[in-house]
Amino acid sequence: MKYYFAADIGGTKTAIGLYDEAYNEIYHGKILTEPSEGCEKLLDKLYGMAGRLFEEYPVAGAGIACPGPLDVSRGVVNNTTTLGWYNVPVRRLFSEKFGVEFALLNDCNAGAYGEYVVRNCKNMAYMSISTGIGGGIIVDGKLYNGQGNAAEFGHLYAGGRHLKCGCGREDCLELYASGTAVESEYFRRTGKRLSGVDIAELANIGDEAAVSIYENVAGYIAEAVVDIQKILDPELVVIGGGVAEAEPFRNAAAFQKIGQYGVKVAFSDQAGKQVLLGTIHYIRDFMEIRGIGANETTQEVLRQ
Amino acid sequence: MKYYFAADIGGTKTAIGLYDEAYNEIYHGKILTEPSEGCEKLLDKLYGMAGRLFEEYPVAGAGIACPGPLDVSRGVVNNTTTLGWYNVPVRRLFSEKFGVEFALLNDCNAGAYGEYVVRNCKNMAYMSISTGIGGGIIVDGKLYNGQGNAAEFGHLYAGGRHLKCGCGREDCLELYASGTAVESEYFRRTGKRLSGVDIAELANIGDEAAVSIYENVAGYIAEAVVDIQKILDPELVVIGGGVAEAEPFRNAAAFQKIGQYGVKVAFSDQAGKQVLLGTIHYIRDFMEIRGIGANETTQEVLRQ
Repeated sequence: MKYYFAADIGGTKTAIGLYDEAYNEIYHGKILTEPSEGCEKLLDKLYGMAGRLFEEYPVAGAGIACPGPLDVSRGVVNNTTTLGWYNVPVRRLFSEKFGVEFALLNDCNAGAYGEYVVRNCKNMAYMSISTGIGGGIIVDGKLYNGQGNAAEFGHLYAGGRHLKCGCGREDCLELYASGTAVESEYFRRTGKRLSGVDIAELANIGDEAAVSIYENVAGYIAEAVVDIQKILDPELVVIGGGVAEAEPFRNAAAFQKIGQYGVKVAFSDQAGKQVLLGTIHYIRDFMEIRGIGANETTQEVLRQ
Repeated sequence: MKYYFAADIGGTKTAIGLYDEAYNEIYHGKILTEPSEGCEKLLDKLYGMAGRLFEEYPVAGAGIACPGPLDVSRGVVNNTTTLGWYNVPVRRLFSEKFGVEFALLNDCNAGAYGEYVVRNCKNMAYMSISTGIGGGIIVDGKLYNGQGNAAEFGHLYAGGRHLKCGCGREDCLELYASGTAVESEYFRRTGKRLSGVDIAELANIGDEAAVSIYENVAGYIAEAVVDIQKILDPELVVIGGGVAEAEPFRNAAAFQKIGQYGVKVAFSDQAGKQVLLGTIHYIRDFMEIRGIGANETTQEVLRQ
C-alpha cells in the first residue's frame, strides 16, 4: 500500500492529511494559521506534524495547496497576502527536508480536483466561497488553467451598488457574496462586528438582518453559477467553502431558481477536505506524468 | 489542389463560399434569406448556387453552418425559429444531392473555428454580436462544447432594468447589447423604428440617442468580455458580427477599460466570412477523424 501526504495552508487554519492510494483517510489534523507569526513559524509547525507521519509511513508523494498567486511550475509561493509569505520556495524546502516529491498547487484548483475525484464528471466547475471566492474548472477530466488564471469566479460581475474591487473592477462577486462580505454587510446594517459563524447562527435563530444577508448572498451566487453554466455548460457545479457550509446559505430560496436553467448544482460534502483530496490526486497525476512508477516511491526516485 | 464548399445560413442572408485547401477564397456569394418563403425555397436556391460550383470544381468536402438548436451528430436542423426550419435533415439532403460528405454545425461555433484558423491561439473565445449574441470557445485548439450548449454568451447576466429573457432568466446580455436591443432601445428613446445599420449611421453623424446607445452596448459587452476572461482566461477574445462591425460600437470608450484587466480583445477582420472559414476547417477535421485520406475526395469514399 502506498501513502500520500497533503497540506492545505489557509489564511485562518492549516489542515494536513495522510491518505492511502484508494483515497482513504489515514490521518487528519488541523492547526491555526497565525499569519502574524510569519512564515518560518508555520513552516516549523508543519515540519513537525508532517515529520511524525513521514517517520511512521512510507510516503510515496506529497503536495501542498496554498492560496495564490503561486509559481506552480517552480513550486514557489510568490505573494500570498493572506499568509504574508513572499517568494517562499515551498517545494524545494519540503522536498529537501523529507526526500519526497512535493507538488505545490493553488488551493481552489486542488478543491476542484478533490471534487472531481468524488464526482467523476468529465466537465465540471468548483466554486469555493470562503474569506474570498475562488474556483477551479475541470475540462475533459483535467484541470483547465487558461493562461494560468482561469476560474477567477470571485471577480465575475455581480451588479450591485458600484463597489470598487481590489482587482480594479467594479461590483465583483466577492464584494457581495464572500465571507468577508457577509461580515461587512452585517456591520453596515447593524453596527455589530461579528464573525461569519456567529452571523450564520443568528440567521438560524431568525435574526432578520442575518437571514436577509444570507438570502442575498445566495442570490448573487446563483447568478454567478448560471453565468458559469452559460459559458462552460458543465455536468455539475460544486459549491464548497465556509460560507457554503452555513445552513442559512444552503437553505436560501435563491438556489431553487437555478434548477430552472438546467444547471446541476451540488454542495460539497467533503467538509473542507476536498483540497487535501485534490492535492493527493494532483501529486499522483504529477508522478505518473514524470514517469515515477507504481513500484517505487519518490524517495527512491530522488535517491537514484 | 482540393476544394471545400461552405454555406452560412443566417436569418437575414445566406452566404456560400468555395475555398482551396490553403484557405484561399475561390468564390463568395450571398443571397437574401426569406424565412417567410419557407425552407424548400431556400434549399432550392442553395442547391442551384452550390450545383454550379460542384460542377466546376472537384469538391473534397462541404459544410453548412446554421443557427441552433441543431442535432450536429445526426446533421439535422431541429428547430431554428429565425429560419422557420423544423427537423430538416440538412446533412442527408445535401450529401445525397452532391455525393460529398456534408457537415452541419452551429454558426457561432463555426465562427470560433474561423477565427482560430486565422489567430491560431490555443485557448480563445469568439463572441458574435448580431441579431442575437452567441459564441464559441476553443480549448487547446479544439472546440469546447460542454454538454452541447457552452458559450451561450448572449445569456450572461448583464444587470439592467429587470427585463425578462426568453430563456427564463432576467437581464441577459442579449436584451441590452444585441442588434435587436439596439433597434428596440432606439425606438424606446425616440419613437422611431430604424434598422441597426441606419442607427449606426446616425451615430456616425452625431445623433445623440444613437451615440449613447452604442456606448451603452459597448459597456455591456465589455463587462461580459471581462467575465469570459475571469472564467476562461483565454489568450484572446475575438468580437464579430454585424453590431461589432459598426464604427460607433468599435470606437466606444467602454472598450478602453477592458485592457486594464489584462484582457486581450480583437475585433474580427473577417467581415462575416469567419463562419465560412470555420466551416471549412471543421469539415477538414471531420474528414481527417473519419479517416478520409488526403488523396481521395469524399465523393470517392462515399462511392466505395
